[in-house]
Amino acid sequence: MAIIDKDKYSIVLIGAGNLATNLGKALKSKGFHIVQVYSRTRESASKLATLLNADTTTSLEEVREDADLYIVSLSDSAFEKLVPEITKGKNKGLFVHTAGSIPMSIWEGYTDHGGVFYPMQTFSRSREVNFTRIPVFLEANDDRDLQILSYIASELSSKVHIISSEQRKVLHLSAVFACNFTNHMYALADHLLRKYDIPFDVMLPLIDETTQKAHQLSPKEAQTGPAIRYDKNVINKHLELLADEPAIQELYERISQSIYKEGK
Amino acid sequence: MAIIDKDKYSIVLIGAGNLATNLGKALKSKGFHIVQVYSRTRESASKLATLLNADTTTSLEEVREDADLYIVSLSDSAFEKLVPEITKGKNKGLFVHTAGSIPMSIWEGYTDHGGVFYPMQTFSRSREVNFTRIPVFLEANDDRDLQILSYIASELSSKVHIISSEQRKVLHLSAVFACNFTNHMYALADHLLRKYDIPFDVMLPLIDETTQKAHQLSPKEAQTGPAIRYDKNVINKHLELLADEPAIQELYERISQSIYKEGK
Repeated sequence: MAIIDKDKYSIVLIGAGNLATNLGKALKSKGFHIVQVYSRTRESASKLATLLNADTTTSLEEVREDADLYIVSLSDSAFEKLVPEITKGKNKGLFVHTAGSIPMSIWEGYTDHGGVFYPMQTFSRSREVNFTRIPVFLEANDDRDLQILSYIASELSSKVHIISSEQRKVLHLSAVFACNFTNHMYALADHLLRKYDIPFDVMLPLIDETTQKAHQLSPKEAQTGPAIRYDKNVINKHLELLADEPAIQELYERISQSIYKEGK
Repeated sequence: MAIIDKDKYSIVLIGAGNLATNLGKALKSKGFHIVQVYSRTRESASKLATLLNADTTTSLEEVREDADLYIVSLSDSAFEKLVPEITKGKNKGLFVHTAGSIPMSIWEGYTDHGGVFYPMQTFSRSREVNFTRIPVFLEANDDRDLQILSYIASELSSKVHIISSEQRKVLHLSAVFACNFTNHMYALADHLLRKYDIPFDVMLPLIDETTQKAHQLSPKEAQTGPAIRYDKNVINKHLELLADEPAIQELYERISQSIYKEGK
């Protein structure tokens, strides 16, 4: 038997960014009720609330006090400032945030029912993601809270993990390397190709294979290219080619050094 | 009608590394005849020659002089030194190299039938690649040579392009960013996760989605994470977490700056 009754369980979203949008849509598609969406701007709040068939507000004071679950998905700095306002007057509900780098202890002194619901994925507004494959990392002090979060998370995803704040911090940092920095490597390739009128699309088979390899080999085993071979000949040609791009040239040099060092 | 008769067309591979191995296997599977494999070491030569049902040699002087096509796939520095020896006494054959960063002009003065056959992919010995999806970039001075190379390349791949040495240099450099440097970002994530006993596998859904996005959005549009938002709060937490890894910390800082700069 489910630990909660979806029909009677009310969820408020605090924040209406990319993560909140994707999470809200996934929750709704699984039969959960989002009753209200808060966002600082009317436009964002309305846009998401319409999708979710929920009420909206742009004032934290107007956030309903009777909800069962408050999912807070704001920028880290905004969230850290607003914790007192977010929790004020709401003694019953469970509060979770979705941030990789904020410890669960942020709730201490404000609510006994604080936790974390961290879906590790890169969310862009223009692209719908399949939530089933997104790992969700949970944390809560209270056993029942953790059971509720586990139930909700496993309705959305097949990969639910319970981890500590310390581990989550490292996960988030690692995700920056594996996702954000990786995408920037694509952006730099795109930047260079554009200068010679070569479309970025020619890189896609190579990019796909690099990803496929990560499923089969450890990154260390999969490493190829001039840096791991310490092929000064090729490296110098590349640095020459980047003579008019000093910032990219320096990055090339430093990443190459790092590859060589890590490979030893 | 095919421009050459596969049954009567003989190919020699000079080099037996990852690229030569993958290319040789793909050629054989399409009915081409690899008659001989040269490698500096007996072991590599024999290993590949056995797969291809070819003769072997470890001496460039013993390379057959009557072959139709010589595919040279050596390290750039070895190749540059060996061009005279490779071409010596062979007046009939077509010579191509497979290097991204070496111009076609390397053949000048040694043969009138020099060209380039550059399959842009990351080859690891332990992983078989599907050649059909690998873009192959060709170059040749002689029209008939270019027709022959186009025929062979299109037997292997659906993506055959004719480009200049200058464009190929930029392609190769861009591939280092999109593949080698990307893989290193995975390696750094793996390095950090290991310290906290978190398996690298948890990153795979995120890595897959980052790649999928590259098919749909430009890298600039797809960029997410603390650096593009210039979220000092999160960036500083990450730098703190990397306090005992000064080299990775510096890389984190520089790549973040580059993301912010490129995003403006």
